[in-house]
Amino acid sequence: MSANKAEGPATASAERMVTMDKLVNLCKRRGIVFPASDIYGGLGSTWDYGPLGVELKRNVKDAWWREMVTTRTDVVGLDSAILQHPRTWEASGHLQNFTDPLVDCKGCKQRFRADQVQGGRCPECGGELTEARSFNLMFKTFVGPVEDSASVVYLRPETAQGIFLDFAALVDTQRVKLPFGVAQIGKSFRNEITPGNFIFRTREFEQMEMEYFIKPDPAEETPWFDYWVDRRFNWYVGYGVRREHVRLRPHCADELSHYSRGTTDIEYLYPFGWGELEGVAKRGSFDLDQHARYSGKDLTYFDEEARTRYRPWVIEPAAGVDRAMLAFLLDAYDEDVVEGEERIVLRLDPRLAPIKVAVFPLLRKGGQPEKAQGVLQTLQRYFTSVYDQAGSIGRRYRRQDEVGTPFGITIDHQTMEDDTVTLRDRDSTQQLRFKIGALAAELTERIGLHR
Amino acid sequence: MSANKAEGPATASAERMVTMDKLVNLCKRRGIVFPASDIYGGLGSTWDYGPLGVELKRNVKDAWWREMVTTRTDVVGLDSAILQHPRTWEASGHLQNFTDPLVDCKGCKQRFRADQVQGGRCPECGGELTEARSFNLMFKTFVGPVEDSASVVYLRPETAQGIFLDFAALVDTQRVKLPFGVAQIGKSFRNEITPGNFIFRTREFEQMEMEYFIKPDPAEETPWFDYWVDRRFNWYVGYGVRREHVRLRPHCADELSHYSRGTTDIEYLYPFGWGELEGVAKRGSFDLDQHARYSGKDLTYFDEEARTRYRPWVIEPAAGVDRAMLAFLLDAYDEDVVEGEERIVLRLDPRLAPIKVAVFPLLRKGGQPEKAQGVLQTLQRYFTSVYDQAGSIGRRYRRQDEVGTPFGITIDHQTMEDDTVTLRDRDSTQQLRFKIGALAAELTERIGLHR
Repeated sequence: MSANKAEGPATASAERMVTMDKLVNLCKRRGIVFPASDIYGGLGSTWDYGPLGVELKRNVKDAWWREMVTTRTDVVGLDSAILQHPRTWEASGHLQNFTDPLVDCKGCKQRFRADQVQGGRCPECGGELTEARSFNLMFKTFVGPVEDSASVVYLRPETAQGIFLDFAALVDTQRVKLPFGVAQIGKSFRNEITPGNFIFRTREFEQMEMEYFIKPDPAEETPWFDYWVDRRFNWYVGYGVRREHVRLRPHCADELSHYSRGTTDIEYLYPFGWGELEGVAKRGSFDLDQHARYSGKDLTYFDEEARTRYRPWVIEPAAGVDRAMLAFLLDAYDEDVVEGEERIVLRLDPRLAPIKVAVFPLLRKGGQPEKAQGVLQTLQRYFTSVYDQAGSIGRRYRRQDEVGTPFGITIDHQTMEDDTVTLRDRDSTQQLRFKIGALAAELTERIGLHR
Repeated sequence: MSANKAEGPATASAERMVTMDKLVNLCKRRGIVFPASDIYGGLGSTWDYGPLGVELKRNVKDAWWREMVTTRTDVVGLDSAILQHPRTWEASGHLQNFTDPLVDCKGCKQRFRADQVQGGRCPECGGELTEARSFNLMFKTFVGPVEDSASVVYLRPETAQGIFLDFAALVDTQRVKLPFGVAQIGKSFRNEITPGNFIFRTREFEQMEMEYFIKPDPAEETPWFDYWVDRRFNWYVGYGVRREHVRLRPHCADELSHYSRGTTDIEYLYPFGWGELEGVAKRGSFDLDQHARYSGKDLTYFDEEARTRYRPWVIEPAAGVDRAMLAFLLDAYDEDVVEGEERIVLRLDPRLAPIKVAVFPLLRKGGQPEKAQGVLQTLQRYFTSVYDQAGSIGRRYRRQDEVGTPFGITIDHQTMEDDTVTLRDRDSTQQLRFKIGALAAELTERIGLHR
């Protein structure tokens, strides 16, 4: 295990330039993340991903999918529905256990989370509070034209249950053998009482979850659990999260979810402190047991070697797309001085960068813009690419630096003579000349898409 | 305009092998699309995309994104929230107009769509029916811990409104100039009374919508509308939908949506008849006008050339991911005879195929499996690839043919001597020999990912 098990520092290192304010401002100013429904005053911690944010998000999801599905032979993908049969949540325990304790003020009638109220009196009016009662965090809605209890369904609070519901169908159709995993990416919804910290905690969010099915045996469980904790830890580091900003934190017995036999959080040092980035849980056979019981269906797996049937145990690495994005953005954020000028630069891994390459004509004459447009059209077939001819070349570089574009191609006087261009590197700001015909291969290698 | 404006044939051509039953069975048997919540008896036309379906869906979305965003300079992407401020739907007109007329039976209390009940008496018990009243198709839920009218929000019934809400933020941050488009892909929800026909009409579905903003001038509107109808029509044909199975159908005045100045549907000939595949609508400035009125915000665009402000008009090509998948699958489905044996083959465009390449050792000995695993590992870095060593080579080919895998690589005795393999083409079933080191480039070219 190469992951960092020691306690991390209590606060970020002194050199860390980024604050939440700086990042939120950059995200808003450049269209990475906007407050959603903003023209109507917003809707409590909902966010829209702008033109650059949507590309970053796509890249984060693709990187996870590549790591967890397409470069492996033991994991398959799934995309299950958000609206599932309501029995799902009875069986999974979410209807009963996925709750926060709430209290009401008998005076002003406001409602608060019980664990956030001190001394039994209302923080707003000082009135007396009711006993705490459970508030379920699932959003409910009604299918069909009649709003009654028979038609209630819930927006899924996790993608995982879709995988368990399809377990038998997957085993029947996919010729999978233990150990194997099922991965999916999709929206989940939790009616959080206190969302906040930008995209860290939101009511609508996107998950990347994988259920890894193993033999029901602690001797299999421990090494696979360690394996996945390690793989997931190193995935973040491999895509640019700084090793000193991540740590592992095993859950105490009293904070374990109702389905878990043991959970370790991969925590990240956000500017507001350590917080969850991903949880890796030992779910045992809890979910398959429950769904077998509630559905009456056979959810066993036939072990051909042992000639026996059993319900497998599960290791679940559950990540959040939005939190991963936040961590990558925070650790990419930097400020430095280039040629005597201050700049903001997002040092994103080129594989995650929203735009891979920007194409600039040095001058708006001499055929340079037309030549640059030709280069753009070729490169767009391979990479997300933009064209910019507005302002000084230095200013155009800065504009790309602060959204993390790793490469800039400049068409200049020499291009018109020998068909070479300069390729500028975002981090070193160094420039090298290449033939236009060699650019696609050179950039593919530098971006590292097939690494 | 090269699109087919004439009426298409009333039914499919006689050679069409596919029926809905055949396709649904194949999808279920091979894990392309499963009935969702199946172990609990299902949940009215919800579907899960299995390991192959999720890859096909990703490819359809990527193909659209590439066509509409990344290979263009005039369109940017967006990913806005599903939960939006409820005023959104007052302004957009959905709260008032997005309804179906329903009637209740005074006897058995069942509810029906008024336009599907004949003669004013209940089709179940013959009882008397109430007058029709409007039933809104939006799913509603409650944000925060109190279920009252102040906390009601709706699951978006279309992705488009997120684009209009962000219009000012996009204009402010993206340096866009008219004409420009904003594209997004995401889930939408409609509480349909009569969903059905497999993934054709479902309550939860995924949309690919683009709002193309133009000057508010009919002389701009007509050519841009024709341009987008044509582009979208040819996108389907370019990815494998047969030209004779698509047609254009302009909406009559009485079926236009409340926001539309004119709509043309791109219709597809499903086995159950002609039906909508995509709608291209002239939304004018309806949405920006309404949101400006309801929010009090300035949603104008400053035209630098004309030195004037106005709210742009909009052309909207709105496609469904699930319907596009259905059309691609239907037109890919074929049955033929190869070497005296019947086979099912999905002739999917290689760019859409869930798996690009399957790697087979001819024999399970002589080092062939190890060699094949090595080839797999290399190819997995570039393409979705699978390994199969179970059963005769002919049977393994068939298994891939019926899920549309365009290429098969076989490692045989000769491979162990000269490092060449055979590359088999799904459609022609012809085989050619290549050096292993040349495979990635050869397959990239044949798949046509950068075309």
